Amino acid sequence: MTYCVGLRLNKGLVFMADTRTNAGVDNFSTTRKMFSWSIPGERAITIMTAGNLATTQAMISLLNERSEAVADRDPGILNQPTMFQVARLVGATLKEVIAYSTPSSPSAADQFGASVIVGGQIKGGKPTIFLVYPEGNFIEVSADSPFFQIGETKYGKPILVRAYDADLAFEDALKLLIVSFDSTVKSNLSVGLPFDLQVYESDSYDVDRTARIETDDPVYKRISSRWGDALKNALDQLPPYEI
Amino acid sequence: MTYCVGLRLNKGLVFMADTRTNAGVDNFSTTRKMFSWSIPGERAITIMTAGNLATTQAMISLLNERSEAVADRDPGILNQPTMFQVARLVGATLKEVIAYSTPSSPSAADQFGASVIVGGQIKGGKPTIFLVYPEGNFIEVSADSPFFQIGETKYGKPILVRAYDADLAFEDALKLLIVSFDSTVKSNLSVGLPFDLQVYESDSYDVDRTARIETDDPVYKRISSRWGDALKNALDQLPPYEI
Repeated sequence: MTYCVGLRLNKGLVFMADTRTNAGVDNFSTTRKMFSWSIPGERAITIMTAGNLATTQAMISLLNERSEAVADRDPGILNQPTMFQVARLVGATLKEVIAYSTPSSPSAADQFGASVIVGGQIKGGKPTIFLVYPEGNFIEVSADSPFFQIGETKYGKPILVRAYDADLAFEDALKLLIVSFDSTVKSNLSVGLPFDLQVYESDSYDVDRTARIETDDPVYKRISSRWGDALKNALDQLPPYEI
Repeated sequence: MTYCVGLRLNKGLVFMADTRTNAGVDNFSTTRKMFSWSIPGERAITIMTAGNLATTQAMISLLNERSEAVADRDPGILNQPTMFQVARLVGATLKEVIAYSTPSSPSAADQFGASVIVGGQIKGGKPTIFLVYPEGNFIEVSADSPFFQIGETKYGKPILVRAYDADLAFEDALKLLIVSFDSTVKSNLSVGLPFDLQVYESDSYDVDRTARIETDDPVYKRISSRWGDALKNALDQLPPYEI
């Protein structure tokens, strides 16, 4: 499995992805699932992937034009005029990769499927995030659904639903995401540290505000260990239910 | 779907079940999923069911010996010497019902499958809870896993994992369960109010402490509406994450 979240805030975008990949509980590894492209001052694009690793790696390679000789590469993702066109390109590439792996059996499409979150900003447009499906189509964030999750989405959703606020500061949004990720890793072994995160400030056209939270990160550990007590205090504030 | 939880506390047991049943989002209804049997002063047994409704209703009917003429009924569940034997009877009945519906195709076993939580106490033994699988086998609560969930288990699990404590008072355990159920109904339309709940105090051999939380229950509404604020306060107590 995997867990990735892309949040749209009034101040910009926040992305967070785990790095665990596995083929059974006895065969797991660490791999990056967050990828960025930018032209300083003009565009910043970030992609997070969930699903079959061969599919998502092939998709990223194709987006990077690794099928071309090094000198001939000119990644299309850097030439699209809008984020909508970027999402279309990502969707078309994803669909093509899945179709290549599944020449005949429709059920294999599930096996080689993947989902992608792609977000960022291109000059002239606003920062936005798309969720791209294995069929190549996609949906965009809106005021009603201001974040997207892919992979193991259920454990970490309730806290996002309750505590998300478009006015959150970046450091508070990251804290919220850490709690959501922590709830997920505590319940699903196929999601694991380290976590990659990235903050995109509107109109910065910059993909450099990134960090990797390693297993021994002291702030992560403090957030994780204090969250249990904070939740118990929160419960204490509620009225008990007497039969 | 469905959501049911059985918790073992030091003081006794707590059961809670939703009542929504559906065959597609355009066809849903309310049905009881919690059933109790007792011999005052001697035994108290409660069952909660998730899965195919025809399967679970047939299982409950067979446990009630509705295949016998009214005068001949002597439910086996009231004659077993231990809770372990009760779980065995429930498992055997469940397996039999599923086998009846799926004469040939193994994939149909999933379609007609169901899971059951059975808990209670029989004089001479301690209060306990079993999780019974569609294959008829089962596992028992322990200090390491003191509660069982069936149905849509993911959304409501993180809060249980973090805030469960064997020393909880019944009214606080109910509050915890209400929060867990509230997180679930907010994310999955196939889980819904009203909720049935039951508290079993050790050595009471009594299944009468039950209640049904209706959609307009004022305490439930207060817990649900205050939980968002309580969570935000809990998040405020944590250190922010600066990149």
